[in-house]
Amino acid sequence: MKIITISREFGSGGRELGRCLAEALGYDYYDREIITSLANETDLNEKFIEKILDTGIFPTFTLTFGKTFTTTMGNTTVKGTGATKLLVRETQIIREIAKKGRNCLIVGRNADILLKKYHPINLFVYASMEAKLQRCLNHKGDEDLSLKQLERKIKQIDKNRSSHRQLLSNEKWGDKENFNLCINTTGLIIRDIVPPLMDYVNFLFEHRKHK
Amino acid sequence: MKIITISREFGSGGRELGRCLAEALGYDYYDREIITSLANETDLNEKFIEKILDTGIFPTFTLTFGKTFTTTMGNTTVKGTGATKLLVRETQIIREIAKKGRNCLIVGRNADILLKKYHPINLFVYASMEAKLQRCLNHKGDEDLSLKQLERKIKQIDKNRSSHRQLLSNEKWGDKENFNLCINTTGLIIRDIVPPLMDYVNFLFEHRKHK
Repeated sequence: MKIITISREFGSGGRELGRCLAEALGYDYYDREIITSLANETDLNEKFIEKILDTGIFPTFTLTFGKTFTTTMGNTTVKGTGATKLLVRETQIIREIAKKGRNCLIVGRNADILLKKYHPINLFVYASMEAKLQRCLNHKGDEDLSLKQLERKIKQIDKNRSSHRQLLSNEKWGDKENFNLCINTTGLIIRDIVPPLMDYVNFLFEHRKHK
Repeated sequence: MKIITISREFGSGGRELGRCLAEALGYDYYDREIITSLANETDLNEKFIEKILDTGIFPTFTLTFGKTFTTTMGNTTVKGTGATKLLVRETQIIREIAKKGRNCLIVGRNADILLKKYHPINLFVYASMEAKLQRCLNHKGDEDLSLKQLERKIKQIDKNRSSHRQLLSNEKWGDKENFNLCINTTGLIIRDIVPPLMDYVNFLFEHRKHK
């Protein structure tokens, strides 16, 4: 089984790159699917779950697991309340993905740390602030923000990802050391990166000795 | 003209990777050649020059340029004393390399900053401390150092490179933002990296839009 994880700066195109790379390699792809699982298991909506997991804002709320997923995943006991439960369950879902034993690519969610024992190839995707702003402006949903507000949003989301990571590891978010390759997408069209990146990833799976 | 620059952590194999990559691409290769030029122009020996440029230790000494290189490079007036002169002259030599208009790869010496206007592809090569220690142990010259001393040496050299860089730029040494690709060599044989990396570099030259 081969696992690729992608961590990325907000606006760098990392999610798109992950999706295209998984498609090109024929790997299972997980990104929003993890959030959707959590939404299916709880009575919460996806946007709300994503906000809790991404922003580090952990309101107190009661949470019941076991709607759709109990049938496929078995009964799961998650201790703690609200957001903590959600985080723990997210972690379980990611580990369950790996246990399926299929080649897969997971975007975000600190999968590089959670699945360390499977020796994933870990990629980090980033870009200049100018390039990230441009990419966000081209996307739906951010049209009403000024450039300044957008830059603040980008920085805030990455800061939140960083604190989220610190719940799991002492490793600093975005530190090169944790990744096999760090890819700057500035000035590039995401789809174009896939063929040479796929070659590099295949090379890594074939040649690296993990210690 | 295509220019590749390689910055690297000490012990990461970045120099070897640069040499192999230049060879595979058929590019001119510069690394020690720059130091050799400086040694030829002055009455100083290469090791001494390298130490001054690399360690940030700038003793006061008098320096005369113009032995071998005045004939090929033209007369050069370098103001300032000792180490400053050496740094300025180093900068000039790197710019003269670019002016030749030939495809080239330059290892270290902050060529990424000095040659910014030529839009080089900038690579950063790094590895885990364990991998760097192992690589150093396999090399001649470090046999008499304990692991602890070796680790201290590795950290010190990178710290010096970092301060050297700060003379030229506000950019932090090793910051991902300054590089098109950051390559972790941990667990890899350097020569093996060349084919997939060459493809990625060729892709970058062909597809990126530099702003």
